[in-house]
Amino acid sequence: MGKEMKQTAFEKSIDSASQIMLQKAEDEGIETAWDRYEQQLPQCSFGQLGICCRNCNMGPCRIDPFGEGTEKGICGATADIIVARNLLRMIAAGAAAHSDHARDAVLTFKKMSEGKAGSYRIKDEAKLYSLASEYGISAEEKSREEVAVELASALLSEFGKQEGPILCTKRAPESRLKLWSELGIEPRGIDREIVECMHRTHIGVDNDATHILLHGLRTSLSDGWGGSMIATEIQDVLFGTPEPKKSTVNLGVLSHDKVNVIVHGHEPILSEMIVEAAEDPELLELAEEKGATGINVAGICCTGNETLMRHGTPIAGTFLQQELAVITGAVEAMVVDVQCIMPSLGNLTGCYHTKFISTSPKADFPGTARMEFHEEEAYATAKEIVKAAVENFPNRNLKKVSIPEEKQECMVGFSAEAILKALGGSPAPLIEAIAGGAIKGIGAVVGCNNVKIQHNYGHVNLVKELIKNNVLVVTTGCNAIACAEAGLLVPEAAALAGDGLKGVCEALGIPPVLHMGSCVDISRILVLASAVANSLGVDISDLPAAGAAPEWMSEKAVSIGAYVVSSGVFTVLGTIPPVLGSQAVTALLTKGLDGVIGASFAVEPDPFKAADLMLEHIEGKRKALGLK
Amino acid sequence: MGKEMKQTAFEKSIDSASQIMLQKAEDEGIETAWDRYEQQLPQCSFGQLGICCRNCNMGPCRIDPFGEGTEKGICGATADIIVARNLLRMIAAGAAAHSDHARDAVLTFKKMSEGKAGSYRIKDEAKLYSLASEYGISAEEKSREEVAVELASALLSEFGKQEGPILCTKRAPESRLKLWSELGIEPRGIDREIVECMHRTHIGVDNDATHILLHGLRTSLSDGWGGSMIATEIQDVLFGTPEPKKSTVNLGVLSHDKVNVIVHGHEPILSEMIVEAAEDPELLELAEEKGATGINVAGICCTGNETLMRHGTPIAGTFLQQELAVITGAVEAMVVDVQCIMPSLGNLTGCYHTKFISTSPKADFPGTARMEFHEEEAYATAKEIVKAAVENFPNRNLKKVSIPEEKQECMVGFSAEAILKALGGSPAPLIEAIAGGAIKGIGAVVGCNNVKIQHNYGHVNLVKELIKNNVLVVTTGCNAIACAEAGLLVPEAAALAGDGLKGVCEALGIPPVLHMGSCVDISRILVLASAVANSLGVDISDLPAAGAAPEWMSEKAVSIGAYVVSSGVFTVLGTIPPVLGSQAVTALLTKGLDGVIGASFAVEPDPFKAADLMLEHIEGKRKALGLK
Repeated sequence: MGKEMKQTAFEKSIDSASQIMLQKAEDEGIETAWDRYEQQLPQCSFGQLGICCRNCNMGPCRIDPFGEGTEKGICGATADIIVARNLLRMIAAGAAAHSDHARDAVLTFKKMSEGKAGSYRIKDEAKLYSLASEYGISAEEKSREEVAVELASALLSEFGKQEGPILCTKRAPESRLKLWSELGIEPRGIDREIVECMHRTHIGVDNDATHILLHGLRTSLSDGWGGSMIATEIQDVLFGTPEPKKSTVNLGVLSHDKVNVIVHGHEPILSEMIVEAAEDPELLELAEEKGATGINVAGICCTGNETLMRHGTPIAGTFLQQELAVITGAVEAMVVDVQCIMPSLGNLTGCYHTKFISTSPKADFPGTARMEFHEEEAYATAKEIVKAAVENFPNRNLKKVSIPEEKQECMVGFSAEAILKALGGSPAPLIEAIAGGAIKGIGAVVGCNNVKIQHNYGHVNLVKELIKNNVLVVTTGCNAIACAEAGLLVPEAAALAGDGLKGVCEALGIPPVLHMGSCVDISRILVLASAVANSLGVDISDLPAAGAAPEWMSEKAVSIGAYVVSSGVFTVLGTIPPVLGSQAVTALLTKGLDGVIGASFAVEPDPFKAADLMLEHIEGKRKALGLK
Repeated sequence: MGKEMKQTAFEKSIDSASQIMLQKAEDEGIETAWDRYEQQLPQCSFGQLGICCRNCNMGPCRIDPFGEGTEKGICGATADIIVARNLLRMIAAGAAAHSDHARDAVLTFKKMSEGKAGSYRIKDEAKLYSLASEYGISAEEKSREEVAVELASALLSEFGKQEGPILCTKRAPESRLKLWSELGIEPRGIDREIVECMHRTHIGVDNDATHILLHGLRTSLSDGWGGSMIATEIQDVLFGTPEPKKSTVNLGVLSHDKVNVIVHGHEPILSEMIVEAAEDPELLELAEEKGATGINVAGICCTGNETLMRHGTPIAGTFLQQELAVITGAVEAMVVDVQCIMPSLGNLTGCYHTKFISTSPKADFPGTARMEFHEEEAYATAKEIVKAAVENFPNRNLKKVSIPEEKQECMVGFSAEAILKALGGSPAPLIEAIAGGAIKGIGAVVGCNNVKIQHNYGHVNLVKELIKNNVLVVTTGCNAIACAEAGLLVPEAAALAGDGLKGVCEALGIPPVLHMGSCVDISRILVLASAVANSLGVDISDLPAAGAAPEWMSEKAVSIGAYVVSSGVFTVLGTIPPVLGSQAVTALLTKGLDGVIGASFAVEPDPFKAADLMLEHIEGKRKALGLK
C-alpha cells in the first residue's frame, strides 16, 4: 500500500480515544498494528483462501484458485483437503488455548484445595457443591476441601480421559446430545480430541473434507462444553460468580496521578492477586512515597473482562487498544499472562517508561522483565509485580503523557445465574417476552478486533442494529468492551432499543446488551441457551437466536464459531475465514451443516447486512415455533 | 518447470524397479508425485524459509528474508518467532501422529485384556511382565489378564496424565534425565505437551524463539521416550518382539498369479489380521476359484515394516513407491490405515482395477471403498477386506500388468532384544568392538522419501559410506526399505564394509546394516543407546554415534529429529527444514543446542558430505572417550 493509501486515525477506529492515540503514535513516529498491516499488504492470496499447505517438507504446496494451474499438492491433496486440514488445525489451536487455560485453573483449584496455594480461597461455595453434585460426588461426611479435591480430580479427568465421552456435555439439551452421538461427534477427552486433530492433519492421514470437519466440530464441542465451560465454572468457584455491577471503560480510565498497572491476557489467576495487591497498605504507602496518589489497575482483553466482571476493575481497552494504552505514556506496568498479547509490546514499551512484565511459564516475549508466576507464591509474586510498577512511577515522562478523556460507564456482571436472578429465578419471564414479541430473539455477539475492519465498527453497528430491532444482545470478549466503549452497556442505552426490548430493559433496569464475560464465558451463553431450550422443551437450534463475531481474528474464535454452530446457533462471521479456496468446504460451512446439525455459518463483513441475516434467521425460527 | 526440465525416470529414482514403473506411468499418461512436484515449482520461498504465518486471521503475514521489507507480522512477530512457532507446530503434529497411534495400540491391548477383542492374543508374555514390573505392577496372585489390564491403565495414564512427568523416560541414562529436569524439559503427560504446543503457538502466547523451542524438545521427548516407545513395546507384547528372519523387498515381490494385497500406512493392528486372513482356507479356496494360486500380502511404509519384522511378509516399497505399486496393474487391493498415504491413490487406483480400501476411523480418502476397522471385530473385518481383494482378482487387466523383476533378499528383525541376544546377552561385545576400533561407532539412519531428493539416493549412499568407514548402521522406516532394496540388509553386504566392521559382521553372521523396524521403533534405538551408555557409565551424548534422516519429509520426522538430538545424538538432515528464515533459530539448532543438551543438528543434502560430518563427529566422540 503506497503512502497515499495510508489510513488516517479516523479510518482506523470509530473510537475517539483510540483515534487520538493513533494520531499521537503517528506524531511520535511510533509503529502500531495498523502500520504493520499496511506493510503486509498485499497479503498472500493462497493463505487467505486457505489453499497453501505446509504440512510436510515436500511442500510448501499451493493450489491455483482459478483452476488453470496446479490442482493438487505433491501428495495429491486437493483444495478441499488442504482447506479442511488448515481449518482443523485452527480449531485445534483455539480449543487448545481455551482448554490449557482451563487446565491451569483446575490445577490452581486443586492446589488450593490441598492447601498448597494459600493465596486462593473458595468464593462460591454453592457452585462448588452444585458442580460436585453434577459429577456425582457426594458431599456427605466430607470437608469442603475434600469435596474440592475430588471435584478437581473429576475435572482434570475431562482433559486426560482416554476412554468414553466427557461428562460436562451433559448440560446440553437431550436432543442435541443425541444428535452429537448419532453423528459420532460427542467429544471424548479434551486433550485427546486436540491431539487427534494434529494426527489427522499430518500428511497422509485424513483426506476427506467432510470427515475432517466433523472431527473439527467434535473438537470444538470439547472446547465449548468442555475446556471453556470448566474454566468459567472453576473460576467462579475460586473468584466468585459475577453479579451486576458498574464500572468504566476506555483509555480514559488510566490515571494521571496514580500508578497505572495494566493486566492483559486471558487468565484471572494472576490478575485476581494483582487486584488484591493494589490495595496492599504497604504498596499504597510506597506509591505515596513515589509521588502517586494510589494504584490504579485496569484491564485489557479477557483478563480485563475477568476482573471487570468480578471486581468492577475498569478496562482500558480491547485487543487493538493494547498498544494505544502504552502510547498514553502513563502505564507503569503492562502485566501479561497468555493469549492475544502482541509481541510488539516489547519494542513499544521500550519507547516509553512502561515495564513489560511477562508472567506465564508458557509465554515469553522479547523485551520483557520476566516475573514468572506460580500459584504457590501467588500473592507474593503479585506484590512484587505491583511493587515494580510503583517503583517505576517516577520514571513517567510527563512530556510524553497524554491520556484521552474518554471513559464510559457500563453495567456488567451478567453471568447466566445473574440473568436468571434478574428474571426472578427462572427463564420464564424472558420466554414470555420472546413469545409475546417484545423481544424478538437473542443475539450472541462476541469476538476479537481485526485490523481488516475499522476498530469497533463491526461490533458497535451490528449490536445497535440488533437492539433497534428488539433483539436482546448477550456479549463477551472484545465485543463486550467495544459495546461498553460505545455506551451500550448502560440501562440508559435502552433508548436505542426498539420499543419492546426497551420496555423489558426499563422494567428490569438492565441494559439491552448484557456483558456475560470473557471469551471462555461464551460457555455461559451455552448454559443460558440450554436453560431456555429446556424450559421450552425444544433444541437450541429451534430458538430465535443467532450468533456473530463481527471482527474475529484468533484461532480461538474459529473453535468458538464451530462449537456455537454445532450447538445449533446460526453464526455470522465478519471477517472472511481462510476457506474460500474450497467450494466444497465453503458450501458445507454455509449451507451443508444446516442439514447435519441444524445450524450453519454466514460470512458478512458489513455489520448492517450481518444484522439483517441474523434478524431474518430469528424471524424464521419464530415462525417455526408459531410465534408472530 | 518447463517441459525441457522434466526429470527422466532415471533422475527420479536410483532404484531400477521404480525407474521402470515411472517410465510405465509416463507411457500410460499416469500422474505421480514427481509430476505434481514439477507442477508445484517454483515453491513458495516464504514457506520454505518458515517465515509465513497463518496463525490468525489478521494475516497471513510474511517476513522479507532480505531485510529490506516487512520485518514483522501484524502482531509484531519477528522471523525468529514465526519460524520457531511453525517448527513447534510441526513437532506437535509429529508427536501427535506417533502418540495417537500408540494410544490405539494400548486401547486394543486393553480391550484384548478385558476379553473384548478376541482376535488378539498376548504373544510376548515376558515383555508383558517386564513392562508391568517397570510400572511397579506386581504380578503376584494375579492372572495374566489382570496384569495386562493394570498395565494398560498405567500406559494410558502416560497420555492423559495432568500432573507430574511421565514414567517411561526413566529408561534414559540418569545423567540425561537429570539434564532434562534441570532444563525444565522432562516431559509431562503426552497429550498435555502436544496441546500446550498448540496453545503456545496461538497468537499472542509464546513469543520467544528459545522458549518456544525448549517446549518443542520437551514435546518431542514425550514422543520418543513416550508415545513411540509405548507403541513399540505394546505392539511387541501383542504381536511378538521381532527376531532375525529373512524376507524379500521391492516391487518384484508382487505376484503374477496370486492375489496381491498391499498393506500400507503405520499401524500393525489391522495388518496383523490381514496377514492371518490371507492364510484362511476359505479365502484361499475362493482365490483358487477366482483363478489365483494364492494370496500374497506385501507391505509399504511402516505398516509394511511391522509385518516384515514380525512375519517376514515381503515389502513392495517405500513411501515414494506407493503409487508405483498400483502402476504395476497387479494390485487387487491397496489397504491403508493412517499416515503417509497419498490421497492421489484415489484417482490412481481408478485408472487400474485396484480397490483402494481405507480402514481407520481417523482417515478417509477420496475414491476409497471404506471398510472401517474396529478391534472388536478385527479378524472378521480383515477377512472381508481380503475377500474383496480376492474377488477383484478376475478384474486384473493383463494388458496393463507389468511387474518389475527386481526383488531383493534381506535379513530383518533386529529389535534391541535381538541385537543383544546376537551379542550373547549383553552389549559388552559391541562395546569391545567399538573400543578396539573394529567398529568406529554407530550410525542411526532413518526417515522418509522426499521428491526433492532422487528416490533412495540419499539413503543408500549415506549408509554405504558409513559402513565403508566401519560404522555399524541401525535403520528404521523408509531408510530400512531403501537399504533392503539396495542389498545392504544381507550378511553378504559385509563385503561393502570396512575391514573392521566386515570382520564383526562375518563373525556374527549379521548384515552391516541392522533393520530395527518402523518409525515408532526408533525408540528401539534409544533403548539400545541407553543400554550401551549405561554399560559404559556415560551419557548417550558421549557415545561415538550419530543420526541422519537423508530424505525426510514428514512432521513425524521433525519430532523424531528433535527427540534424537534431545537424547544426545548429533543428527544430519538431508532436506532443508523450513527454518532458514531465522538466523537465531538456525544457529540454535545447528550450534546452540550443543551447549544446552550436548547435541545439535546439521543440514547436508549431499549424502557423501553428510557421511563425512557423521564420521567426523564419531571421531571426536572417540577421542573424548580416549579411544583411538
